[in-house]
Amino acid sequence: MYVIITYDIGVERIDAVRITIKQYLNWVQNSVFEGQMSVSDLAELKSKINGLIDIAKDSVLVFTVNNPKWLEKNVIGASRSSTDNII
Amino acid sequence: MYVIITYDIGVERIDAVRITIKQYLNWVQNSVFEGQMSVSDLAELKSKINGLIDIAKDSVLVFTVNNPKWLEKNVIGASRSSTDNII
Repeated sequence: MYVIITYDIGVERIDAVRITIKQYLNWVQNSVFEGQMSVSDLAELKSKINGLIDIAKDSVLVFTVNNPKWLEKNVIGASRSSTDNII
Repeated sequence: MYVIITYDIGVERIDAVRITIKQYLNWVQNSVFEGQMSVSDLAELKSKINGLIDIAKDSVLVFTVNNPKWLEKNVIGASRSSTDNII
């Protein structure tokens, strides 16, 4: 499945969350990651995120589509995509 | 079509962009809007955003799916959704 994750997280927890998500997905904007991943990897990642954030304060949105062809993406302005892809 | 817009924009331009996107979509996180919109409205919105941002510095990602049923969304932690929906 294809996944987009966006987050709004307290600065004291952001590095841990970013490092964790980067193990599964590609960084594409300040607080946005995306990429292809398996259902089981996504479940694992969501569980890890849940353990890292403050559930009362932080917000993480996980958007998924089963078929990446269903999702179109356009960039207006600068592209921030990293070149290192999935670690 | 269903649209997710994420942005990373210089602070001096962010209010204008946020106000503009809010005329079409629902605010769901710090730098994330989403919602249903027509192809023509999306074209209009993209044109407006293009006129407001610094193309060399700012980045706006526009994700679209033709059928909202194709997109699943999960929230981990706090939900930031506004209650005022589309203006």
